[in-house]
Amino acid sequence: MALERYFVDFTERDWERESVSGTVRMAVVGVGGFARERALPAIDASAYTDATVLVSGSPDSTREVADEFGVEHVIGYDAFLDGVLTDTYDAVYVATPNAFHGRYATAAADYGKHVICEKPLETTPARAREVVDACAEAGVTLMTAYRLQCEPTVRRTRELVRDGVIGDVVQIHGGFSNPLLANTTPDTWRLDADLAGGGALVDLGVYPLNTVRFVLDTDPVSVYASTTSTDDAFAAVDQHVAFQLEFPGGATASCTASFDAHANSQLQLIGTEGSVWIASPFGGVVPHEIVVESGDMCMEYTGRPTDEVREEFAYFGYCVLTETTPEPDGHDGLTDAAIIDAAYDAAGSDRRVELV
Amino acid sequence: MALERYFVDFTERDWERESVSGTVRMAVVGVGGFARERALPAIDASAYTDATVLVSGSPDSTREVADEFGVEHVIGYDAFLDGVLTDTYDAVYVATPNAFHGRYATAAADYGKHVICEKPLETTPARAREVVDACAEAGVTLMTAYRLQCEPTVRRTRELVRDGVIGDVVQIHGGFSNPLLANTTPDTWRLDADLAGGGALVDLGVYPLNTVRFVLDTDPVSVYASTTSTDDAFAAVDQHVAFQLEFPGGATASCTASFDAHANSQLQLIGTEGSVWIASPFGGVVPHEIVVESGDMCMEYTGRPTDEVREEFAYFGYCVLTETTPEPDGHDGLTDAAIIDAAYDAAGSDRRVELV
Repeated sequence: MALERYFVDFTERDWERESVSGTVRMAVVGVGGFARERALPAIDASAYTDATVLVSGSPDSTREVADEFGVEHVIGYDAFLDGVLTDTYDAVYVATPNAFHGRYATAAADYGKHVICEKPLETTPARAREVVDACAEAGVTLMTAYRLQCEPTVRRTRELVRDGVIGDVVQIHGGFSNPLLANTTPDTWRLDADLAGGGALVDLGVYPLNTVRFVLDTDPVSVYASTTSTDDAFAAVDQHVAFQLEFPGGATASCTASFDAHANSQLQLIGTEGSVWIASPFGGVVPHEIVVESGDMCMEYTGRPTDEVREEFAYFGYCVLTETTPEPDGHDGLTDAAIIDAAYDAAGSDRRVELV
Repeated sequence: MALERYFVDFTERDWERESVSGTVRMAVVGVGGFARERALPAIDASAYTDATVLVSGSPDSTREVADEFGVEHVIGYDAFLDGVLTDTYDAVYVATPNAFHGRYATAAADYGKHVICEKPLETTPARAREVVDACAEAGVTLMTAYRLQCEPTVRRTRELVRDGVIGDVVQIHGGFSNPLLANTTPDTWRLDADLAGGGALVDLGVYPLNTVRFVLDTDPVSVYASTTSTDDAFAAVDQHVAFQLEFPGGATASCTASFDAHANSQLQLIGTEGSVWIASPFGGVVPHEIVVESGDMCMEYTGRPTDEVREEFAYFGYCVLTETTPEPDGHDGLTDAAIIDAAYDAAGSDRRVELV
């Protein structure tokens, strides 16, 4: 297939295979910055979802947010756990600090609600497993909120790789850095090891990690990592991380993430017959710039802006309505939790850790 | 200093501090593809060097090359070792297979000749040390032929880093891949472990390795690596390598090299206040494209083509004529030899190896 063909419909929803009607009514559990600025507008813009409940630690001040987005109900966490208003929502979006994901996701599942849960699913593989088990037991849909899997350059890259346009993938470089304290104060839960389950690796490194696994459609067999924290504010978690994954067949991914560096993200795949470079895959709303080389051909493409968070919620809604298992399901989140755990083991022991 | 200032004289020879006269007469030892296609034209074009002798395993067929570049003498390796024509050259450029570097570099030093030796200096740290010692004992100049240290984007990047334009460097990504068998046959000495001293790491990985050390002006404290060979042709050496360096203060460099992937090279530095990205630093003659971000500023610059091999020989000639120690001296080559050795240890033991 000619290279251009992959970009004929850059933003194509290849997952949208049938026409469906209906709307999934959503409770948003945890109304922080990302929920307010990205998730609520996206739930609103997605044809398949509608926010009907906000769950917040301070319902009074959250009322203003609810009004802005036309959300009828605001309740507190305890009311949510007690099953208040369960007849007004079909699914929950869990966007609390990581260590509370399990509590609210499990409660939702117990009430028969579908779940889209922010990554990481939980702070340890064992706790993540509890979320997966609870949703399986309840027979509800569980999606890990990997927005990148709905991002057009990433989806097109997976197709290019799958079709052998760049040959066999040999080496990958991926990085994501974001100066956390430029936008938040040091008392953020993201710097609390118990609440976050880790630092830069958990919060940012998971993007290249999950995206590489998605694009290659395979899981690594080993991981090595080194973590550093040089500033007091980052004493409890990794301020910076560099990790190296090995995949079946020998491909490697060299990844980095940092809480305290100039904002940057990139993903580059080198194959036996070509390469793909995505300029800024992980940072959110940016031009979708991608450069593909295949043999002697080179194509540079900048796609029209696409809100990947809207795409993510549309995909979740579609999966719920069609009773389809999402690609980024609970096992996907569980696999990353296990790899992150092994990476911290590797960093602590200065050794390559095999993944089973 | 404003960002633009670094590019006012992009190709500036900041090393050329005094005006010198004279020419260093060069014997080129080993007349392979790189010597014919890049080194001899560069020696010719450099104002400070002139080739007067070619040393070859097949002097008769090399005569044609000599005529093309106006080189008076062609002799065999034994004649060179026997000191034939030593009065017709002042310095040697050693471009044989790696395992013979020591033999010819040492002989040249013993005859009081200055030496520019291709990288790696030799196939093991111990053998590289013999070259350094021989040159020190003879009191002659020894330069390891790291052409990248004479490449404008790399030199300007070192200045940007040194001046703190991107803050403290946090994470680096560097890669160099070149499909060896697209241009040569499997019987090449580069795939013979004894002759080459290693595979993709030695031949290609040394470019990001040395360039990162040069740009940061510091040496790594540890290395981790994984090597793979999946094809029979590469059974004796590493076909692919991924390695991760840690520097004092915690900066990391995630590097890759491959003998069997789409031709590609890149170098990216992420600092606390900015980033530098060089599009194709290692492959040779390409546009010198560099993107610098510093705080809110971004500057994209494509420099005029510069022959970094000519610059390299000009620098060597200048150092000999001014009795200046080259920056890429024997110790620089020796340091890389030790890091490469440790990287292979790491790959064999699946462990991070500390560098002393």
